[in-house]
Amino acid sequence: MTQFVDVPNMARWIQREGVEGIMRNMVKYLENDFTRWEKFDKIPRVASHTPFGVIELMPTSDGEEYSFKYVNGHPFNPARGYQTVTAFGVLADVDNGYPTFLAEMTLLTALRTAATSAMVGKRLARPDSERMGMIGSGSQAEFQALAFRAAMGIEDLDVYDVDPAAMDKLKRNLEPLGFRVTAMSSSDEAVANADIITTCTADKAQNTVLSDKQVKPGVHINAVGGDCPGKTELEAAILYRSTVFVEFPEQTRIEGEIQQVEEDFPVVEFWKVLTDQAPGRTSEEEITIFDSVGFAIADFSALRCLRDSTNGTELQTYIDLVAEPEDPKDLFSLVNSLKPVG
Amino acid sequence: MTQFVDVPNMARWIQREGVEGIMRNMVKYLENDFTRWEKFDKIPRVASHTPFGVIELMPTSDGEEYSFKYVNGHPFNPARGYQTVTAFGVLADVDNGYPTFLAEMTLLTALRTAATSAMVGKRLARPDSERMGMIGSGSQAEFQALAFRAAMGIEDLDVYDVDPAAMDKLKRNLEPLGFRVTAMSSSDEAVANADIITTCTADKAQNTVLSDKQVKPGVHINAVGGDCPGKTELEAAILYRSTVFVEFPEQTRIEGEIQQVEEDFPVVEFWKVLTDQAPGRTSEEEITIFDSVGFAIADFSALRCLRDSTNGTELQTYIDLVAEPEDPKDLFSLVNSLKPVG
Repeated sequence: MTQFVDVPNMARWIQREGVEGIMRNMVKYLENDFTRWEKFDKIPRVASHTPFGVIELMPTSDGEEYSFKYVNGHPFNPARGYQTVTAFGVLADVDNGYPTFLAEMTLLTALRTAATSAMVGKRLARPDSERMGMIGSGSQAEFQALAFRAAMGIEDLDVYDVDPAAMDKLKRNLEPLGFRVTAMSSSDEAVANADIITTCTADKAQNTVLSDKQVKPGVHINAVGGDCPGKTELEAAILYRSTVFVEFPEQTRIEGEIQQVEEDFPVVEFWKVLTDQAPGRTSEEEITIFDSVGFAIADFSALRCLRDSTNGTELQTYIDLVAEPEDPKDLFSLVNSLKPVG
Repeated sequence: MTQFVDVPNMARWIQREGVEGIMRNMVKYLENDFTRWEKFDKIPRVASHTPFGVIELMPTSDGEEYSFKYVNGHPFNPARGYQTVTAFGVLADVDNGYPTFLAEMTLLTALRTAATSAMVGKRLARPDSERMGMIGSGSQAEFQALAFRAAMGIEDLDVYDVDPAAMDKLKRNLEPLGFRVTAMSSSDEAVANADIITTCTADKAQNTVLSDKQVKPGVHINAVGGDCPGKTELEAAILYRSTVFVEFPEQTRIEGEIQQVEEDFPVVEFWKVLTDQAPGRTSEEEITIFDSVGFAIADFSALRCLRDSTNGTELQTYIDLVAEPEDPKDLFSLVNSLKPVG
């Protein structure tokens, strides 16, 4: 039987552990796997694009376990009452190929995206960072805020969203948790005093939600929303003033902010920073960008973190997904109560 | 909520409808989708190979629905009590990207592989075919036999397998259903009087389970087991005497019998036979080969056939796989019963 964590149990897990507790634990899983980067099978995600959005499969394996995530991105969904992004994922045993664990990943993706941003931000933002400017306050915003508080103690948020109701929602969700959230009337105001700028908007277009003149020296830009072909958030000029850190260059050049620039634009693979093969931030004035697109290895980490944390608890149920006849060559035995016709 | 057909309900469905009844219905779905071949997104499956076997993802879409299948192939599994092939699959709504239907596909893949062979065999084998030679009597064998009886009335089977117990199993499963099954002591004997030869063995190697001198004019070869890189069953010389029909050439050249021959070896895409854009069998003496590897569109057809046939019955349950907050921009609302810390 395959272990299963459905939506209600995922919500219960988050309530039990707390987002910040999960963040601290998940960052350890991420760091462990990013450190083993070279051991993993890595391919750009497999995308099926339509005018409505995209459906993607994101597989990877470390040679012992295999994972994949199904995820969609449909920017017009919220206007129709649906989530922009929904996801689910699977772990499998490489040794025999059997799926071992299935989980909802809409919430888990929100957690892993934020945890990845925090893992990177902790190493690239100035250590004295206190204030985050956030452009976009949709589904991912609370998770980013909690991740950066868990990793760096950030509690001051200056927020701008084109939808005032989305800013109200962010205040409503975060202020009771001790954040100081200021809703701004422009992105200029949201980033004016920021040590860290998080861009996380949903529109599938080459937008400039952050322009070059808004970016001051020393800032760390956590660029989350530019994550598929034709979807970017930063004015290209910013990239030329900055050091750009990526997950998997082959995928980021297709999907990230760097899709706007030449193919050989220099980037730093973040796993090399983790393993001391590349420097992170080198000066107070340097502008660092995490060009986050979300890579399969982070889903692998998140699924294993969830599985290990819920093992043996009532948060896991079981589903019968794998046919197991007594004689493995006799699959037909499962159905051979058919009536004879002879 | 996502509709779900698990293993026990899949077995119940097959018992309720009968394999042959399902075959007749599923062939209609396959013919409908193969006829619309040009409308589909088509990519070779995405494979993760290890020394133990392979794990694959097989996505496709007709622009309205999307499907993918997870499937493994682990030839050493039966010796350890596991299935060689297990699978599950998903249908999703392209319009909003939500997964709508999840099903076990170990049994369903056995059905769709056999149904595809039958759809093709019905058009390529001589119409007067009466006797099938089968090399390999593993998990897929009963399904192939029932598919060819449903499509062409074949009831005489001459079988050879290196494992005598597997032949006993086939006789035990099929004779009560009215088949005349003869277990042979060599592949020579199994194919000597065959109008149709089905090869379906599991060993992941470049084998010759069928050699050139065994193949007489006029036969149709249903070559099922050669379906991944390094796994073939036919002596290459057979290919040069035959007309080879394939599902999706880009995938078959990597995975099928034709991986043994030059890259521009001529093949006929079967969907063109269905749509009268290419001839099928052109003479009594022609040797036809269906170089079956299994393509995503057949899984799409099989999933839709199963879904439609079980809709509104107790064979479907529901699983909570997609987070649906009341406000789609407020994913955090699902977890915000967190205790305040302020």
